[in-house]
Amino acid sequence: LPANGYLLAKLMPLSEFDVIERYFNVAGAQRDDVVLGIGDDAALLRVPADRALAVAIDTLLEDRHFLSGSDAFDIGYKSLAVNLSDLAAIGAEPAWATLSLSLPSADGHWLQAFADGFFSLARRFNVQLVGGDTTRGPLSVTVQVHGFVEPDRALRRSGAQPGDKVYVTGSLGDAACALHQLQAGHAGDPLLVERLNRPVPRVHVGRALTRQAHAAIDISDGLLADLNHIARASRCGATLWVDRLPRSTAFAASCDPEWVLPMQLSGGDDYELCFCVDPERAERLPALAAEAGVTFTEVGVMEKKPGIRCRHDDGSIYSPRSGGFDHFA
Amino acid sequence: LPANGYLLAKLMPLSEFDVIERYFNVAGAQRDDVVLGIGDDAALLRVPADRALAVAIDTLLEDRHFLSGSDAFDIGYKSLAVNLSDLAAIGAEPAWATLSLSLPSADGHWLQAFADGFFSLARRFNVQLVGGDTTRGPLSVTVQVHGFVEPDRALRRSGAQPGDKVYVTGSLGDAACALHQLQAGHAGDPLLVERLNRPVPRVHVGRALTRQAHAAIDISDGLLADLNHIARASRCGATLWVDRLPRSTAFAASCDPEWVLPMQLSGGDDYELCFCVDPERAERLPALAAEAGVTFTEVGVMEKKPGIRCRHDDGSIYSPRSGGFDHFA
Repeated sequence: LPANGYLLAKLMPLSEFDVIERYFNVAGAQRDDVVLGIGDDAALLRVPADRALAVAIDTLLEDRHFLSGSDAFDIGYKSLAVNLSDLAAIGAEPAWATLSLSLPSADGHWLQAFADGFFSLARRFNVQLVGGDTTRGPLSVTVQVHGFVEPDRALRRSGAQPGDKVYVTGSLGDAACALHQLQAGHAGDPLLVERLNRPVPRVHVGRALTRQAHAAIDISDGLLADLNHIARASRCGATLWVDRLPRSTAFAASCDPEWVLPMQLSGGDDYELCFCVDPERAERLPALAAEAGVTFTEVGVMEKKPGIRCRHDDGSIYSPRSGGFDHFA
Repeated sequence: LPANGYLLAKLMPLSEFDVIERYFNVAGAQRDDVVLGIGDDAALLRVPADRALAVAIDTLLEDRHFLSGSDAFDIGYKSLAVNLSDLAAIGAEPAWATLSLSLPSADGHWLQAFADGFFSLARRFNVQLVGGDTTRGPLSVTVQVHGFVEPDRALRRSGAQPGDKVYVTGSLGDAACALHQLQAGHAGDPLLVERLNRPVPRVHVGRALTRQAHAAIDISDGLLADLNHIARASRCGATLWVDRLPRSTAFAASCDPEWVLPMQLSGGDDYELCFCVDPERAERLPALAAEAGVTFTEVGVMEKKPGIRCRHDDGSIYSPRSGGFDHFA
């Protein structure tokens, strides 16, 4: 220290301040509605006067939500993707994110790859990182996202009605199948592993559905569990036609036949949308799917009777093994 | 399962859904600006048209931000308090919080005590919990808070000017002294331990200062480090008069004299505010302090010269040992 008693902040390798400055204060979208971003006690943001603010928060833990040793790019990507998927499910347009990152050590290569993954998705959906904190501890990533939605058009879980057709986007079971392959020590089918590690949040579909659907949810815990959330919130039930659940070519080729339905019904992590549409509005869906570049598959129908019934196309009952992933089960 | 193929969500003891429902969906403030709270993919919220949304996020980890075995009430309380302190520092009025909780196991008594601590503070500051998630993992608590502030009156770190008087609220060093006592295996002075475990965020002071102060920050990393944040953001420096730093009676009575200044300058966790005021506006401060029931102490002056200089009242230089707590130091 100079003899005149100066105290400058000690320049320590990869201090908390360095981490934020070096890796997180530079990349991603720059939005006009951010009055004050990273670097103060709080971010200051502007919400359009005619929109509700939509807020979702999710934490990813090592060995719980991603395998130990996962690629840092994928962890950064997925930590934002799962949150954007929640905004998609409620029909909101993404705007800002905050990030709380707990790390065993401040490894520059890891941080750069994590930031690259996070911001690759942030740029794609015009999301600006506006704040966060970093601490030393077990690897854990908490992201909160903020978006805007017309308050009377938000896709609530509670809006489904008996008679609504039940649809899912994309294909189901891919992520669960990839996880099974990786946990068995295999390299995993690249297409399936891509679906596990880099799910594409169905943001554009969610926005378009605000004018069409009665209810929506993203499939994070498995279709059965998530459709059951809609059914309970809407005080009704549903029948699912299990033979109609959409399968990707890669999934169909590599999934043990015995595991096809369990993975499609109860495997989590697909981050597709499940939504309920009045039959009279269903005719508009093909155009919407084509515009979004995503398939929509009709997989069931909402009914007055509570609970979810699974049936084969011949009418016989299928009994699922599990109701979905539950963190304290 | 009934023979008709019903699948109801399995009722598992303390599932993620139960945790949210049982402990977190019932208590705390109920606000008119919450369109949709806990229980959907995202919360839907209304921000007043003439206000900026202020957002802050902070994570508390066991053994890092609180001692292992800390009282669950205190962890719940403090996880919200440190975030409300960030809103106070920017001059915002608190509104909503989200919570991401990682727990080694779902212990009902622990969760009830945690929720009691969290909501005791939430009710006091009219904060509604609007969302969150729970996962099994190492004990970790991430809270994000949202508030409102007039965009042109927010207390940014960057607004200080040379000549501004530097003030702190309350007393400094209490939390560091309590931590030292507890880590040495003592019971700790109850008043100091209260300051460590249940800091009172200076929300009302922050709101009042939006009309008076050029800049503010909350003292979480220690006065030196935090004032240095203001100085750097404002492209200036400061002199601190170390003999004038406010001490509580309990601190003065139990702190080793050799540790008084290090704890006051570099001990974190006090969550007082440090703020900078134009000398011409300083005359209004005593009335404001009286109204808030908090003491304000003038401890320094902002100067053009970069860096923070510490001096005794006789003009001699004091050389601090450390620049504050840094999570990757």
